[in-house]
Amino acid sequence: MPLSPTPRSVIKRGRERAQTDRAQLYAVLDSCLVCHLGIIHDAAPVVLPTGYGREGDTLYLHGSTGSASLMAASRGVPVSVAVTRLDGIVYARSVFHHSMNYSSAVIHGVPAPVTDPEEKLHALRVVTEHLAPGSWTHARQPTRKELAATAVLALSLHDASVKLRSGPPGDDDDDVTGHDGWAGVLPLHHMWGTPESCPLLPDDVPVPPHVTRRSTPSPPPTDPHAAAHR
Amino acid sequence: MPLSPTPRSVIKRGRERAQTDRAQLYAVLDSCLVCHLGIIHDAAPVVLPTGYGREGDTLYLHGSTGSASLMAASRGVPVSVAVTRLDGIVYARSVFHHSMNYSSAVIHGVPAPVTDPEEKLHALRVVTEHLAPGSWTHARQPTRKELAATAVLALSLHDASVKLRSGPPGDDDDDVTGHDGWAGVLPLHHMWGTPESCPLLPDDVPVPPHVTRRSTPSPPPTDPHAAAHR
Repeated sequence: MPLSPTPRSVIKRGRERAQTDRAQLYAVLDSCLVCHLGIIHDAAPVVLPTGYGREGDTLYLHGSTGSASLMAASRGVPVSVAVTRLDGIVYARSVFHHSMNYSSAVIHGVPAPVTDPEEKLHALRVVTEHLAPGSWTHARQPTRKELAATAVLALSLHDASVKLRSGPPGDDDDDVTGHDGWAGVLPLHHMWGTPESCPLLPDDVPVPPHVTRRSTPSPPPTDPHAAAHR
Repeated sequence: MPLSPTPRSVIKRGRERAQTDRAQLYAVLDSCLVCHLGIIHDAAPVVLPTGYGREGDTLYLHGSTGSASLMAASRGVPVSVAVTRLDGIVYARSVFHHSMNYSSAVIHGVPAPVTDPEEKLHALRVVTEHLAPGSWTHARQPTRKELAATAVLALSLHDASVKLRSGPPGDDDDDVTGHDGWAGVLPLHHMWGTPESCPLLPDDVPVPPHVTRRSTPSPPPTDPHAAAHR
């Protein structure tokens, strides 16, 4: 299925940066950890950072039932979700062509609240495994009460667009020949640090493999689009 | 002036994470590079990653006059802007208390288009120096035509809220004593890589100090809130 099946998500500007491959949508969503959920609340837009997880063509958004904005988004209203990974700053010869290297996805749709307990548990597993792979089986799973205090929304990835920019500056020819300053890209890497054990933990509890595996240092990727969060 | 002077930006949930210090708002905005701009377009919310810069209590948002969404935001309508820096993943003893360490700011307001050429030039300088400090004097500055093709919005930081989470998991007492697995925080660092010179640049053009200074490796900060992008 192509991306951008509706007029809303057809990218009008920077068409050369628009992507039409669904695999690239998945790659952007899977390599980031925070999305920005936009809803309309009291006739004004509200944007909120939100945790999420993806399964197939469904994005699960997760929050507290005490969040007025998240609850507002669960009432059959349109939302917009953006996920962005910044890969570097593009230092051009001209101020005008300064830019960022990035991958971003924007999804439009009407999310459905996930209320069935089995389905909610499954959705929470997807979100938890996205945020902290391995935690679902390592940690204590949700009680009935905790499940009830958690709101989960399911949003279809049907209506989505992806934009990427990578590579060197796109300066005008006159600047390439006429400017004697520097131009290039300063990459930005997102790297896990050293795990910090909870101070309340007994000294003899080792950091488990599902955490150490994630934070094992590796050389910076040569392709900025491989600079994934996870 | 306190943050959250209006009902819209008073944080109802996670009050213990809400901050009331304006200096913390500035710190969040100054340590990130991309914001997420939410507008209403055709009765639905649209969220877009956008470049910005801050000067005092004004946030300048920057884009192309060819961007329908940015132009829609310049017509005296309410917008919401969110800036989020993810500092780490909180691995709790329970799935329910899994969380993220982060700093985020959300701003509400009606932005004003910056149209006066002098003011626009100044705003672009603020945005450029935020994205790429030192570039305004190193690169060629905008021509009249380039200036005309650039849209800049000014948004007051009057109505803003800040949320932070830092530190170890906040597990229930029963889990602290009863769970024998690991719990802690996996920090996420955002680090500049090695500058990549433009392939079209002559070999003898050195990377200038305003770029090398930014990417000089430094030890990871001990306070996750000091893990700034810049």
